[in-house]
This record gives sequence, structure tokens and C-alpha cells, in this order.
Amino acid sequence: MILFRRLLGDVLRGARMQRGMTLRELSAEARVSLGYISEIERGQKEASSELLASLCQAMDLPLSDVLRDVADAVSIEEAAVGLVVSTPIGAARPAGDVVASAA
Amino acid sequence: MILFRRLLGDVLRGARMQRGMTLRELSAEARVSLGYISEIERGQKEASSELLASLCQAMDLPLSDVLRDVADAVSIEEAAVGLVVSTPIGAARPAGDVVASAA
Repeated sequence: MILFRRLLGDVLRGARMQRGMTLRELSAEARVSLGYISEIERGQKEASSELLASLCQAMDLPLSDVLRDVADAVSIEEAAVGLVVSTPIGAARPAGDVVASAA
Repeated sequence: MILFRRLLGDVLRGARMQRGMTLRELSAEARVSLGYISEIERGQKEASSELLASLCQAMDLPLSDVLRDVADAVSIEEAAVGLVVSTPIGAARPAGDVVASAA
């Protein structure tokens, strides 16, 4: 099963590192506890929408960019598990079965 | 503040309607309570990553497509509140201030 929070965590960690920010700096800037951010980056906790907005704001990073990066990462995993993305032609798959077997 | 869950709810509701599925049908297919799905579609509850995966699977809809559609909707709102997306050239914005005023 492809989990949104895991890939979101990867993208958020990558964005923070690209900015050369420490967890402590991001925590102070976003006013979110360091431990919580750390759990989110490791994909262990779901980020609430408010928290996600705070993190984006603290990194001066548009939420749409984050979501596109996560979508790209999800796409790669979907392709890896053989999920046909947006092109069902010739797929001849039993309805609702491919995703299940990919999970 | 642009909230992920609100735009995610819009996209999920749109996908369900495009398929001509009722809440009851999606609830049965995804094995998620009807009330919970309804709250998610209205942006009132955060969807866990597992639940999001279940809903996508039940609609035979790649998660990456959902996220791209949400990213597009977020982009439109970001543009509407004057957030410069991915093109800071000439923006002359005080660091970390634009997102705050947009929230």
C-alpha cells in the first residue's frame, strides 16, 4: 500500500535539507514541536492540514509544490508496483483488483 | 490558510461523482463508514493515509492523480491570494511574510 504520509515526509525532509535548515530551526519557525516534525518526516505521523500549512509557510514553500513532488514520488511507486496510471487502454485488468494486489 | 483536507475533499467528491458512485457504494467498496467519507469529502476530517489509499483503490483511481488534482486546486488558491508560485523573480517579497499574510 502506497502511503501518502511516508512520501510526504520524504518531500518535507528534502525541502528542509535543501534550505539548510535544522529540525530545530524549522520547529522554531513553524512553531511546531521538533519531535512532531521529526515523526512527520519519517512518515510515522499524519500531518494535519494546519500543520502542513505551517511547515510550508516556515520554509516559504508553496503547498502546491509539495503536493506535486509527492505526486511524482507516488507515481514512481505506482509504476514500480505495476499500477497502470491514467492509461487503462490494453490493460485488461479485472476491476478493482490491480490496486489490491499492488497493496 | 489553504487547507489540504478541504481541497482533497473536493477532488475525492468529484472523482466519486464522475464515476456515478453514491456515498453508500463507495462506503461498501472501500469498507469505510459512510459518515466518515462524507466528512472527508466536506473537508471536515483529515483522511489517514490508509483511508486515502482505500478510497483510491475503491474508485480504481491512482493516488498520484488525486494529488495532482489537489495540487492544481491549491495552485489556483495560491495564485488567488497572491502567493508567487515557484517564480520569485521580481517578487521583492520580505522573506517569510507573504505566506503569512496570505493565510
